[in-house]
Amino acid sequence: MMFEWLHRPLPVPDPGVAEMARRRQHQLTKPPGSLGRLETLAIRLAALRGEISPELGPVRIAVFAADHGVNAHGVSAYPSSVTAAMVGNFAGGGAAINVLSRQLDASLEVVDVGTLEPLPALPGVVDRRQGPGTADFTTAPAMTDGQLAGALGAGSEALERAGAVGLFIGGEMGIGNTTAAAALACALLGAPADDLAGPGTGLDAQGFARKIAILERALARHSEHLSHPHETLRRLGGFEIAALAGSYIACAQMGVPVLVDGFISSAAALAAERLRPGVTEWLILTHASAEPGHQRIVEALGGHPLLDLGMRLGEGSGAAVTVPLLRMACALHNQMATFAEAAVSEQLSP
Amino acid sequence: MMFEWLHRPLPVPDPGVAEMARRRQHQLTKPPGSLGRLETLAIRLAALRGEISPELGPVRIAVFAADHGVNAHGVSAYPSSVTAAMVGNFAGGGAAINVLSRQLDASLEVVDVGTLEPLPALPGVVDRRQGPGTADFTTAPAMTDGQLAGALGAGSEALERAGAVGLFIGGEMGIGNTTAAAALACALLGAPADDLAGPGTGLDAQGFARKIAILERALARHSEHLSHPHETLRRLGGFEIAALAGSYIACAQMGVPVLVDGFISSAAALAAERLRPGVTEWLILTHASAEPGHQRIVEALGGHPLLDLGMRLGEGSGAAVTVPLLRMACALHNQMATFAEAAVSEQLSP
Repeated sequence: MMFEWLHRPLPVPDPGVAEMARRRQHQLTKPPGSLGRLETLAIRLAALRGEISPELGPVRIAVFAADHGVNAHGVSAYPSSVTAAMVGNFAGGGAAINVLSRQLDASLEVVDVGTLEPLPALPGVVDRRQGPGTADFTTAPAMTDGQLAGALGAGSEALERAGAVGLFIGGEMGIGNTTAAAALACALLGAPADDLAGPGTGLDAQGFARKIAILERALARHSEHLSHPHETLRRLGGFEIAALAGSYIACAQMGVPVLVDGFISSAAALAAERLRPGVTEWLILTHASAEPGHQRIVEALGGHPLLDLGMRLGEGSGAAVTVPLLRMACALHNQMATFAEAAVSEQLSP
Repeated sequence: MMFEWLHRPLPVPDPGVAEMARRRQHQLTKPPGSLGRLETLAIRLAALRGEISPELGPVRIAVFAADHGVNAHGVSAYPSSVTAAMVGNFAGGGAAINVLSRQLDASLEVVDVGTLEPLPALPGVVDRRQGPGTADFTTAPAMTDGQLAGALGAGSEALERAGAVGLFIGGEMGIGNTTAAAALACALLGAPADDLAGPGTGLDAQGFARKIAILERALARHSEHLSHPHETLRRLGGFEIAALAGSYIACAQMGVPVLVDGFISSAAALAAERLRPGVTEWLILTHASAEPGHQRIVEALGGHPLLDLGMRLGEGSGAAVTVPLLRMACALHNQMATFAEAAVSEQLSP
């Protein structure tokens, strides 16, 4: 019952609309293909929105925050208490994602899915706590089945609370979550730890070696139970990672295009796709994370991120940065003159 | 006299302000470096604007249009008449750069520096015609000295007409101008034709071979006269390319940061730097053009374009697309909370 909603039908982006949008691109006053990925992006958005001339509509950002038992092993440059402190910073409007939300005129919500330290009531922060961080997955599953259901549901509910949404961005904050995301991706891809692990937000060489060893221990500990994505996510994921996966599945079910941020979000996207094949159709990969393992996940998702700016902050920041590109892609597609409208019809036309 | 203005003093971006901006970046509530190139961009803009917390200010776009005698050899997929037709499209507001200007709230001006077909008076189009296109540079210098002076001056005047400008984008429209830009870059870099030539906006294999042969002929024809950038630009450039170079030099002299578009604009930037060393300090390379020779010029300019979206339209479109990234880089730099302001001081701080 708890997981039944995951199996609701998924709409399919409209190939007929995509074809009509493709034709429109060829009628615009420019050499065909000369706007590069802004053309393919407009065509894809047309198919996702079901409109030959797509409008993006309201942008909603939800940042999911939670802590990780595995962080007790020093797999991050920061202590777990930073997660709660940063939630306070989100509530105060001072973090990167706050600035970007204002800049983009996007609405922002923060969901506490389980920080180690409980938080006081804060403006703009919703309580969906599943516990004081996950369990240490080197010794036990990260979550109970009830916690996994709660975290996935927290993602879905974030979308329901948002009302009319044209574009969704999921962000995350969770000290230690590059370790959880790497463990999850290793298990889902059948890849060794050093394919997916990176320095996160600031590990030195010694810390990095420790992270690899921890990942290997965790993967060995759960190796008999990783054949189903549900169980893999429960054992190796995090509350915020499961919430992201839940939000992506809910977006796909509701036909809302998603901008996927970097390493953690892409691992969540991979889990979502394995839980509910077809979700990826609704996901747009936005930026290449500086975290080296990101490329492996990107390949598995079959995408090609729009930007490569060396970002590695999380919070949904890299996804937010691409919103103006999507808006410009739509504006060019919708507003440029066609050959028929301008006086250049027979000359520039292919 | 005609070229004297090129030697006016160039201001130098303020290293003290850059250092203070760098320190501010390290005080913001994020792991150091985690915003990647958005951080270095904000620091660079601070130095260029002379403000620790830079504001971009008004964005001005000038598109220079002109034709090329060399296009008689079929080096483009399009006839020269398309240049004038596209100027008409700019005046009508239907081209890509019109849409982007509106989207960015930037002001736009088009300068006719010499289309093959004279144009009627058009709204938003300034007449600075230096002739009905350049001469065919396979048999003669592209321009006279007077035409070169006029075209460079047209670039400088475009900036003067703009009034207060925080950021300048030069665009170009000129059928055949990838050939002129490639010839110019070959001469300035001492590179063979096939290092710089590409398919432009749509040449097939046969057309491409013809373009290479034409470039080799032109470079051989002028080989005794290519030791000074002034003479190189006069013999192998184009009116709109010289106007771009003039606008870049004027921007540097006035301390206005420039967003350099793709292949043609980068060749103009290279000419500007050779004419007036130091100009490059004021230039920001915005996108990697789909034209294969662009990378050679980018290396010579010592830059690293922000985006790689496979664009190859010109008009300043690729530069325009990066404006929101610069605005977001400044907003993050200026508006994020510092450790001192937020409650995360001792924990996230490096």
